[in-house]
Amino acid sequence: MNNIHQVKAYFGDTDAAGIVFYPNFYKWMDQATTELVGKNILPTPVLFKEKHILLPLIETFCKYYSPIYFEDVVDIYSEITKITDRTIRVEHVFKREGEIVAKGYEVKAWTKKKEDGIKSESIPDKIKQLIK
Amino acid sequence: MNNIHQVKAYFGDTDAAGIVFYPNFYKWMDQATTELVGKNILPTPVLFKEKHILLPLIETFCKYYSPIYFEDVVDIYSEITKITDRTIRVEHVFKREGEIVAKGYEVKAWTKKKEDGIKSESIPDKIKQLIK
Amino acid sequence: MNNIHQVKAYFGDTDAAGIVFYPNFYKWMDQATTELVGKNILPTPVLFKEKHILLPLIETFCKYYSPIYFEDVVDIYSEITKITDRTIRVEHVFKREGEIVAKGYEVKAWTKKKEDGIKSESIPDKIKQLIK
Amino acid sequence: MNNIHQVKAYFGDTDAAGIVFYPNFYKWMDQATTELVGKNILPTPVLFKEKHILLPLIETFCKYYSPIYFEDVVDIYSEITKITDRTIRVEHVFKREGEIVAKGYEVKAWTKKKEDGIKSESIPDKIKQLIK
Repeated sequence: MNNIHQVKAYFGDTDAAGIVFYPNFYKWMDQATTELVGKNILPTPVLFKEKHILLPLIETFCKYYSPIYFEDVVDIYSEITKITDRTIRVEHVFKREGEIVAKGYEVKAWTKKKEDGIKSESIPDKIKQLIK
Repeated sequence: MNNIHQVKAYFGDTDAAGIVFYPNFYKWMDQATTELVGKNILPTPVLFKEKHILLPLIETFCKYYSPIYFEDVVDIYSEITKITDRTIRVEHVFKREGEIVAKGYEVKAWTKKKEDGIKSESIPDKIKQLIK
Repeated sequence: MNNIHQVKAYFGDTDAAGIVFYPNFYKWMDQATTELVGKNILPTPVLFKEKHILLPLIETFCKYYSPIYFEDVVDIYSEITKITDRTIRVEHVFKREGEIVAKGYEVKAWTKKKEDGIKSESIPDKIKQLIK
Repeated sequence: MNNIHQVKAYFGDTDAAGIVFYPNFYKWMDQATTELVGKNILPTPVLFKEKHILLPLIETFCKYYSPIYFEDVVDIYSEITKITDRTIRVEHVFKREGEIVAKGYEVKAWTKKKEDGIKSESIPDKIKQLIK
């Protein structure tokens, strides 16, 4: 299961060093995962509002190979590379004009928002099969 | 009803021009109003989680007199200057070492989050008296 | 001189109230102006890196008519409505499926980044004519 | 070499799930490192504006143990745990009322901003000794 999500770096995404402030790479990974899940599993509004399913982060990582400048257009190649009973791992490769500028991943938990908090749950079988 | 909220501009708050990216002035106004309301009326967790009261924006404005640079420490002087049946107006003055660097305001609605959406409500009398 | 810039609200653009956190409207106005100026006058990298021209804000305003939710797609209609010797005013209308959800404006100064700081300058005649 | 940096989560730091949007953990790590470096080595304005030294990221990581809610106050314990010829590694532990809510790290390069780009450099000996 994979997807390509395109982003454009804007002036406001940079900092005084003239390059993209690094937390924005994670903001973009989060968007890329939203698109990946939305197109292949269920759209976020359905998952969240109807089913009260949330995918909070367990861990995240990013390795930076080259700075991104404002007006750069970057394609994020995202893929679910691992699925366990209660987690998924999404890997992301950032490319600018074909050149890899960063790589990262997110490990997300499958959880349900309940009255008394956010509870981990087993990923439903049909979702697992969809991903595999 | 007023309050002073101090913020420090960090590198990540600036953009490639080397000065604070302007939406951050609004992020800081929002924090300043949270502190003002939290200290003088009710803390946000009580307002929001127990009473389901939200104060969404009707309009916002900011005038910029001087750029803010990273590592600048800025005091935001906030005051509720107007209250109507269903709205409050909060004015903010940004000062760096006594010099005014920006002025802005927020007009916020008193609303309740219900099953079918966010609904405008009259501000309770005891809140009005507290503010006046 | 006008332009339409489309944005999509992501989960990370919202806050605990479930609606877009308002400083993001300004982040989007800034992007919309970048596109407007970039397509009709000069791209930001040329303006900024070659000519050292910056367009910092003098004042900004936004009026909110309806909340924006995650996954909403919004078109921002931007137009330069006023030009003086050293400033331009850009007006923005936010529409979701044709419905106006917000309106705002930015007044920006024409400045040059020099060794000793950011200095206001007269807008060159050919730029003025381009805009008119 | 270590430091404690306190942050407060604001409403605008959360997303529609009611918990802090995860890229903000990195924004806070970046602030924490700025404070650590600023207090123990050199303040960012001196490093950046006078010496043109930048510390861009090579890799970053965060593991999340518990969600952070708005109004939570979090102490970030930061320490430089490794130094090589051209990089430093900063580890961060996020604690809320003594409980660990997240752990992360940043690996940063020692670079100089020159006419033709950002170039990696050996960390000066006196800085290395200061850190050790």
